[in-house]
Amino acid sequence: MAKVKKAPRPKAQTPKGFRDYFGTEVTERAHMLSQIAGVYHRYGFDALESSAVETVEALGKFLPDVDRPNEGVFAWQDEDEDWVALRYDLTAPLARVYAQHRNDLPTPYRRYAMGPVWRNEKPGPGRYRQFYQCDADTVGAPSVAADAEICAMLSDTLEVVGIPRGDYLVRVNNRKVLNGVLETMGLSDDAQRDAVLRTIDKFDKVGEAGVRELLGKGRLDASGAFIDGVGLSDDQAAPVVAFLTSKGSDAAKTLANLRDAIGASAVGAEGVGELETIAELLDAQGYGTDRIEIDPSVVRGLGYYTGPVFEAELTFEILDEKGRKRQFGSVAGGGRYDDLVKRFTGQAVPATGVSIGVDRLLAALREKGRIGSTAQGPVVVTVMDRDRMADYQAIVAELRNGGIRAEVYLGNPKNFGNQLKYADKRQSPIAIIEGGEEKANGIVQIKDLILGAKLAQEATLEEWKERPSQYEVPRGELVAKVREILGLYE
Amino acid sequence: MAKVKKAPRPKAQTPKGFRDYFGTEVTERAHMLSQIAGVYHRYGFDALESSAVETVEALGKFLPDVDRPNEGVFAWQDEDEDWVALRYDLTAPLARVYAQHRNDLPTPYRRYAMGPVWRNEKPGPGRYRQFYQCDADTVGAPSVAADAEICAMLSDTLEVVGIPRGDYLVRVNNRKVLNGVLETMGLSDDAQRDAVLRTIDKFDKVGEAGVRELLGKGRLDASGAFIDGVGLSDDQAAPVVAFLTSKGSDAAKTLANLRDAIGASAVGAEGVGELETIAELLDAQGYGTDRIEIDPSVVRGLGYYTGPVFEAELTFEILDEKGRKRQFGSVAGGGRYDDLVKRFTGQAVPATGVSIGVDRLLAALREKGRIGSTAQGPVVVTVMDRDRMADYQAIVAELRNGGIRAEVYLGNPKNFGNQLKYADKRQSPIAIIEGGEEKANGIVQIKDLILGAKLAQEATLEEWKERPSQYEVPRGELVAKVREILGLYE
Repeated sequence: MAKVKKAPRPKAQTPKGFRDYFGTEVTERAHMLSQIAGVYHRYGFDALESSAVETVEALGKFLPDVDRPNEGVFAWQDEDEDWVALRYDLTAPLARVYAQHRNDLPTPYRRYAMGPVWRNEKPGPGRYRQFYQCDADTVGAPSVAADAEICAMLSDTLEVVGIPRGDYLVRVNNRKVLNGVLETMGLSDDAQRDAVLRTIDKFDKVGEAGVRELLGKGRLDASGAFIDGVGLSDDQAAPVVAFLTSKGSDAAKTLANLRDAIGASAVGAEGVGELETIAELLDAQGYGTDRIEIDPSVVRGLGYYTGPVFEAELTFEILDEKGRKRQFGSVAGGGRYDDLVKRFTGQAVPATGVSIGVDRLLAALREKGRIGSTAQGPVVVTVMDRDRMADYQAIVAELRNGGIRAEVYLGNPKNFGNQLKYADKRQSPIAIIEGGEEKANGIVQIKDLILGAKLAQEATLEEWKERPSQYEVPRGELVAKVREILGLYE
Repeated sequence: MAKVKKAPRPKAQTPKGFRDYFGTEVTERAHMLSQIAGVYHRYGFDALESSAVETVEALGKFLPDVDRPNEGVFAWQDEDEDWVALRYDLTAPLARVYAQHRNDLPTPYRRYAMGPVWRNEKPGPGRYRQFYQCDADTVGAPSVAADAEICAMLSDTLEVVGIPRGDYLVRVNNRKVLNGVLETMGLSDDAQRDAVLRTIDKFDKVGEAGVRELLGKGRLDASGAFIDGVGLSDDQAAPVVAFLTSKGSDAAKTLANLRDAIGASAVGAEGVGELETIAELLDAQGYGTDRIEIDPSVVRGLGYYTGPVFEAELTFEILDEKGRKRQFGSVAGGGRYDDLVKRFTGQAVPATGVSIGVDRLLAALREKGRIGSTAQGPVVVTVMDRDRMADYQAIVAELRNGGIRAEVYLGNPKNFGNQLKYADKRQSPIAIIEGGEEKANGIVQIKDLILGAKLAQEATLEEWKERPSQYEVPRGELVAKVREILGLYE
């Protein structure tokens, strides 16, 4: 007989770089987002949920002389052949929203947004193409009081989600100070200026000595390759190094060091003045340097932002994949960017904001054991007699009405062992049993699965006898007894 | 002087069919989703968040002999030229997830999912290309106890989000009963069978008489066009009409009517038996016909599902856009579908579930005035002296620490009127004023903006004098007084 050829079955797989989230992975994130939203709300920020899809034009993702959007976004053409794309962050959509609705929005406009963003980048271990961001921004406020507010809010947020004071630090720097330093150095060549900026970006990795080499003749990197330097003399490079290492024992000393580094630059003086104002405002609100400090070694984002720059770092140590101790590092960053809305309207609109890496923050809390303990599954009502499903449904309804997470076993009830295996897989704390005999006698059996598992692992015969893990109670006392048992583990 | 030609500015617009959500639109939906998640959790359902992007293969959206995916989805090619697309519902991803992870998931697997889905369809008034769904499904449970559970959970959910008993009804039908009816009619011709199914789908619109005409010779529709009928005789059409109109005054009568309609059909008898079991199980849990009832006139989805079908309808009347009274209608629907996972694995896996139209449910609650009252904005601390920003930041920090939503005015403080206009736009209940004189005397001014607005509209001069809307209190009593005033409006 000839075989009938069938169409091949589709593969049950997420696309490359995407993943699914199950159970507590979802609920713990939802809980954290709602905690963060609570803080943002208290600070007067309003929720905004923009569409996941934007025109590529609005995102600014067209490269010159190229007929399709920049890589980095997932894009396609709509029915009119116009390119649209999934948002890659929450800041570009904010600029579009503010430009579109500016007549209806208050000025300043404080808004928060949380949700997935998509990046068309090479995925890797722990690097996905869809991940959550959680942003708060103030649009239309030129005052650095807006920046100080963001820093204070970031500090409050970290404590509310469960990072205690002392385990984090919000560090503040200012792009204008760097501009002042560059001005002082008298770099007239734009290419050289850009090379200095790129070098500063490496300060995190190569440290002071490395930056000195890279600003000068060049440097052998870890792999043995020689990296060409910018070609400055030691004297020329001195202001940059002074800037990066200007952190003193308190804000006053740091500010004094910065004033030395910027020389006579006006924009530099403005930047130092802004940092001083931020420090004063935070001090007036009781935020000491144990929470927020001026730190000119913060370089992440200095190229992108136009004024104050902030970064929140977790300061406790964790073990990396190779078992070495290292600091957990950055979980949030932001700063002032004054040109985003201008693309749409022609008018510069001052804006400042912060983006929290929710997934990294969740990872930190898991690392510290603050979340991620095994979730408790539902109480499972077993099915001893498939014709009495109505009885079991009545039991489960009573339990739920008593505020207890509960379910009836809905698989094939023939094999009771499978029902207990199911309860185990569900991490159920309790199984309820009501066979024909129990029904006739008006009782139910309550099996304490957590205690049972514990006894099975640890107990001596004596303990086993003394601490029964199964109880027989009158049917009418079922809910009360289950609550009592759950109380032990809640 | 020649004008320099500039690149055109990007348009600040969402793509066609997309929109932004602001403030309470976002928070009210988030609150409802969390309420629904609470009920689903109590029923033993686990959260699942699958990726927004799926392979087109997994979604089953390729048309035969066509080289790009079915319209209806937003699709593009990844770096390997494989087609991927945004999910168009939460059920297709569930089938993929279950097939992919079935060895790690419990069976039965109860899961809930909530989030946006995307449809590449023509947008219209109130019809967007991105909207929220909120689903719960049980995979791997053949028993209709699983269907009954979904109905009970749907009923609980509607009450928890604020639809009182009596304002909604969950109606249950069964595709197998319809199959029995069709069997009894002896329709051997597939095309005729499909024509009957399509006709039944119109029952909602055209009613019993209309269905009779459409099953017979045909019908003049409202526009005057003649719609050809299926061509059945009155006798032949009788069982279908009997099925659609078989609802009796109680479940027993409805079931008896259905038994008449299905004649000797075995599959029909199975369907009626399932409805009977569902009615018994729900009765045992205390769900009366004031909440859930068997209703064979539910036709939505009968073509798609393979067993029980459910629909939740809001029964109160609203005024439509033309000012006519009409019932609010359906807010949720679902049923049993046993073939979805089979596409991937070759094995049929029974599944049943429900999808709640979150946006429609929110609209219903707004319609009834249960949500959507004007949200209260933050207390606004005005800036009387820009050099004393630290003082104002200290005030606002105190208010926030006292649990009060509050912000400092961060715009240009020169014009005090603009600050009060801002407070008005923010729907602020209170403005705080601390000028130089107040500061010197250790007091602050508290302006009750809600009372002020009320008095301005309604008060006589006498009332105005008797009920001041501005208070002068010692600086140390600020928070207490603000709490007292807010208490009046909370």
